[in-house]
Amino acid sequence: MDRERLLRQLDFILEIDKEKRITRQTSITGHIRKENDAEHAWHMALMSFILKEYSNEDIDITRVIVMCLVHDIVEIDAGDTYAYDEEGKKTQAEREEKAKKRIFGLLPDDQAELFMGLFEEFETDVTPEAHFAHAMDNFQPLLLNNSNGGADWREHDVTYEKVMGRQSRTAEGSRDLFSVTKEIMDENLKKGSLKK
Amino acid sequence: MDRERLLRQLDFILEIDKEKRITRQTSITGHIRKENDAEHAWHMALMSFILKEYSNEDIDITRVIVMCLVHDIVEIDAGDTYAYDEEGKKTQAEREEKAKKRIFGLLPDDQAELFMGLFEEFETDVTPEAHFAHAMDNFQPLLLNNSNGGADWREHDVTYEKVMGRQSRTAEGSRDLFSVTKEIMDENLKKGSLKK
Repeated sequence: MDRERLLRQLDFILEIDKEKRITRQTSITGHIRKENDAEHAWHMALMSFILKEYSNEDIDITRVIVMCLVHDIVEIDAGDTYAYDEEGKKTQAEREEKAKKRIFGLLPDDQAELFMGLFEEFETDVTPEAHFAHAMDNFQPLLLNNSNGGADWREHDVTYEKVMGRQSRTAEGSRDLFSVTKEIMDENLKKGSLKK
Repeated sequence: MDRERLLRQLDFILEIDKEKRITRQTSITGHIRKENDAEHAWHMALMSFILKEYSNEDIDITRVIVMCLVHDIVEIDAGDTYAYDEEGKKTQAEREEKAKKRIFGLLPDDQAELFMGLFEEFETDVTPEAHFAHAMDNFQPLLLNNSNGGADWREHDVTYEKVMGRQSRTAEGSRDLFSVTKEIMDENLKKGSLKK
């Protein structure tokens, strides 16, 4: 056992515990409280495994699952940027780039490179695996929010068009899940939880 | 797309959101609050991927990760049974068996069978994958607790022997990680966080 290597891995493992402190804008079911990044990543990872049959393309599911598990780790330093926060999104890439180097840099070099690569693959979003992970990143809060009667959308006063701007990208990962997304959004428009 | 099948999958996905409400006895780093089952599962799953090189035997890492992600879902109905709660442990198996059928039974039959199988594999703990998932289930709270100066052990007044009874099983999955476990426990014994 290479002790220095293990110590770097343990440093990283303790550091990412802080992801449990990063609060998102989506509420858990029952509208009890907002969820955090670690809970969201757990849910997405498991969803990707359950729903993989709806991917448009063949995917390496292990790669998708690990991408889901790590995609928000940079928010430990960079904070959560709400999907419809236009100001925050201007500095998001720079903040996340710095965080990526610091946090994944705690790992032994080979693993740092692997995880940075997975994070970048998620961000650039051109592979089938990244497309499907993004579909999960959109579909998971949509399901929670719909179960809560669209409360998170009402709270932030977001429009159907804004939500669609983000959710329409789900179709790149899964046309089937996007068709369900559209149904859910249309219902919420009818009920007034989303406005035109 | 088989709509009935998808609806069953979505029912399950919303149901397991309740795992975020199940509080464990372990505190997150910084001793800020207790963690919940979803956060614990996320952390374990990622740890298994990072630490897989320390497994005693060759393992199917995807199987381990998914096992980590689902191993506590039964606690939505059965509740969390603290590792050193001897009364609770008497009825644990019966409560978890019932929960397993209800919750995984929400899924389409093929996936229900797959997940029940993974849960049973974890519980019976004879495969290399189950051994390594158990090593993560032990090692994750040990690391958190150690980062908090052994506060969770002091709070529950547990002995070195009790903790060792559980932690010694880590050696079945990873002798390397068990040797680190023993070091951490011995330090906590010296500091008085664990007593003989």
